[in-house]
Amino acid sequence: MDTMYVFSNVIGSFVFDKKGNVIDSVPFKDINDYLNRSETHNRLKKKYHASEAEGSQLTKILAHFSLSLYDEQLRKMNLMITRSDIKNAVKKDTYIIQAVQAIKETDKAINILGKKVREWYALYNPEFEHEFNHSEKFFEKIVKNDKKTLLKEMSVTVSMGADLEEEDINIILEFAKKVQGLFTFRKENEKYLENVMSEVCPNVQAVAGTLIGAKLIALAGSLEKLVRYPASTLQLLGAETALFRHMRNKKIKPPKYGVLHEHPLIQKARRKDHGKIARAIADKISIAAKLDFFRGTYMGDTLKKGLEEKFS
Amino acid sequence: MDTMYVFSNVIGSFVFDKKGNVIDSVPFKDINDYLNRSETHNRLKKKYHASEAEGSQLTKILAHFSLSLYDEQLRKMNLMITRSDIKNAVKKDTYIIQAVQAIKETDKAINILGKKVREWYALYNPEFEHEFNHSEKFFEKIVKNDKKTLLKEMSVTVSMGADLEEEDINIILEFAKKVQGLFTFRKENEKYLENVMSEVCPNVQAVAGTLIGAKLIALAGSLEKLVRYPASTLQLLGAETALFRHMRNKKIKPPKYGVLHEHPLIQKARRKDHGKIARAIADKISIAAKLDFFRGTYMGDTLKKGLEEKFS
Repeated sequence: MDTMYVFSNVIGSFVFDKKGNVIDSVPFKDINDYLNRSETHNRLKKKYHASEAEGSQLTKILAHFSLSLYDEQLRKMNLMITRSDIKNAVKKDTYIIQAVQAIKETDKAINILGKKVREWYALYNPEFEHEFNHSEKFFEKIVKNDKKTLLKEMSVTVSMGADLEEEDINIILEFAKKVQGLFTFRKENEKYLENVMSEVCPNVQAVAGTLIGAKLIALAGSLEKLVRYPASTLQLLGAETALFRHMRNKKIKPPKYGVLHEHPLIQKARRKDHGKIARAIADKISIAAKLDFFRGTYMGDTLKKGLEEKFS
Repeated sequence: MDTMYVFSNVIGSFVFDKKGNVIDSVPFKDINDYLNRSETHNRLKKKYHASEAEGSQLTKILAHFSLSLYDEQLRKMNLMITRSDIKNAVKKDTYIIQAVQAIKETDKAINILGKKVREWYALYNPEFEHEFNHSEKFFEKIVKNDKKTLLKEMSVTVSMGADLEEEDINIILEFAKKVQGLFTFRKENEKYLENVMSEVCPNVQAVAGTLIGAKLIALAGSLEKLVRYPASTLQLLGAETALFRHMRNKKIKPPKYGVLHEHPLIQKARRKDHGKIARAIADKISIAAKLDFFRGTYMGDTLKKGLEEKFS
C-alpha cells in the first residue's frame, strides 16, 4: 500500500494519498470539534498508518486547500475561532480591573456631585454644612433629619440660612439621595472586588490589600503582566509621572512608590523608612502574584506576617 | 424749653438735650423694631419737637455712644442685622443658579459613570453595547432585559461576549441603575428649574428657553446683574475663553455668541446669519430680563413671536 499522509487545519482532518487526492476526511462542525482536533488527527493517522505531511507532499496538500471551494468553510471556521478567542480572553482579572476603575470613577462622581449638593444645601442650613465634615454621613443626616434637629445637634439656635419652601428643599434632598446611592454602590462594588480578588489572587490580596492589589493589576493590565514585571517596576506602578519627571531632570528625586503609598505599613512608618518598606512590600507582592498566577498554594498570611514582623 | 435733638442708630432712637444727656429713648428689641426705625424716630421727633442732630451736637452724641456701656448692645444688634441680611440675600434666582449648575455637574457625572458602565458591560455583551447608542435608553434596556433578548433585537445569534456569572453581571447592573438614577434626577431638576424660572423670570424663560435663561443668570451671577449688562455683553456670556483669545490675538475672529449658541433659532439658521440672530435674541432677552426684574407685565410670548417671525 502507498504511504498516506494526514493533515489537519481549521476546517478538518484530512488523509491524502501520494498524488494529493483526499482519501478520507473528518470536517470540524463546531468549535468543540476544532478544540479536539489533535485527537481526530491521531485517530485518522492510526487508522491509515499515515505519516505527517512534510516537504513536497505538504506543498501539494496546501495547494489543494487554496482551491476556492474551501474559501467559505475556511472563512466561517476562522470567524468562529476568533469569536471564541475573544470570549475566552475575558478572564476574571478583567473583572478586577473593571471594578477597581469603577470605584475610581464613582469616587470622582461623588466628589463632583457631593460638592454641589453641599453648596446648594448651604443656602438653607449653612451652619450645619459648615460644621459637619464627614462626607458620607453628611448626606445621610440631611436626608433623614430636618433643619431644626440638625441645628440643635450643632447647638445653634438662630440659623442664617434662608427659609426654603418645601419644593425648594425637596429637590436638594433628591440630589443628596443620588449621592447616597453612589456611596452605597461604592461599598457593594468594593465587596464584589473583595470576592473576586479572593478567588483570583488571594495571595496578592493578603499582602497588598484588596484595593492596592486591584490597582496594581489594573495598572499592569492583567495579572499575567503583573507577574512578568520585576519587583522594582511593581514598586513604582502608579508613579509614572514622578518617574518621568525624575528622568527628565535628575535633580528631582526618583519616586519611592506608586500606589503602594497607600499601604498601611507605609502609612504608619517614619518617612525615612518608606523606601525600604516599599521595596520589601513589592518583593512580597511579586512572589504573591506568581503564586496566584501559577495556581500555587496559599501563602498570603505567611508573606504578610513576615512583612509585619519586620516593620511594625 | 431748650432745643432737643433726636438721633437713631442700630440699637434704638434717642432724644438728647443740648448738653448731650439722654432725655428719652426707645431701644430696638429685635430686627423688626430696627426695620421700623424711621417711624420710631419720627414719633420721638414730633413728641419732643426735636431737631436732627448735626454738627457739634452730633459729635457730642456720637461720643456718648462710644461709652463701653453700649458695646454689648451694639455688637448684638449688628450681628442680628448681618444675619438677617444674609438670610434675605438668598433670593429665588439663587435657586436657579444652583439648579442649573447641578444639571451641569449631573451631566458630567453621567458621562464619567456612563462610559465606565458601557465599557464594563461590553465584556458581557459587546454587540449590543456597540450598536445601541442612545445613552439614557441604553441603561434602561440593559437593566430591564437579559442578554438574549437584547441580542435578538440586534439580530445577532452568537455573541462574542463572555459568559458572566450572575454575581459578575449583577454588580454591572447595579452600577447601571445608579446612572439611571442620575438621569431621573436630571429630569426632576429640569422640571424644578422650569417652575422656578416661570415664577421668577417668565419673560426670560419665554425668549431664551429654560436652560439658556438659567445659564445666563448663572453666568451673570444674578438676575439683577443680568439686567445691568448691555445686550452686547449678554450676547457673549459663556464665550469668555474665545473672547479673550480674540483680544490677545486680533487675527482670531471674535465669538458671535456664548450660551446663546444653543438657542433653537440659531441652531436651525444658516451659519452666516448666526451673528445677526444672536444679536437680536440678546436684545430681546435684555428687554425680558428688565421686565422680570422690575416686575413688569408678561410679554414673553410677544417678544418670542417677534423673533420667530423675523428669523424662521
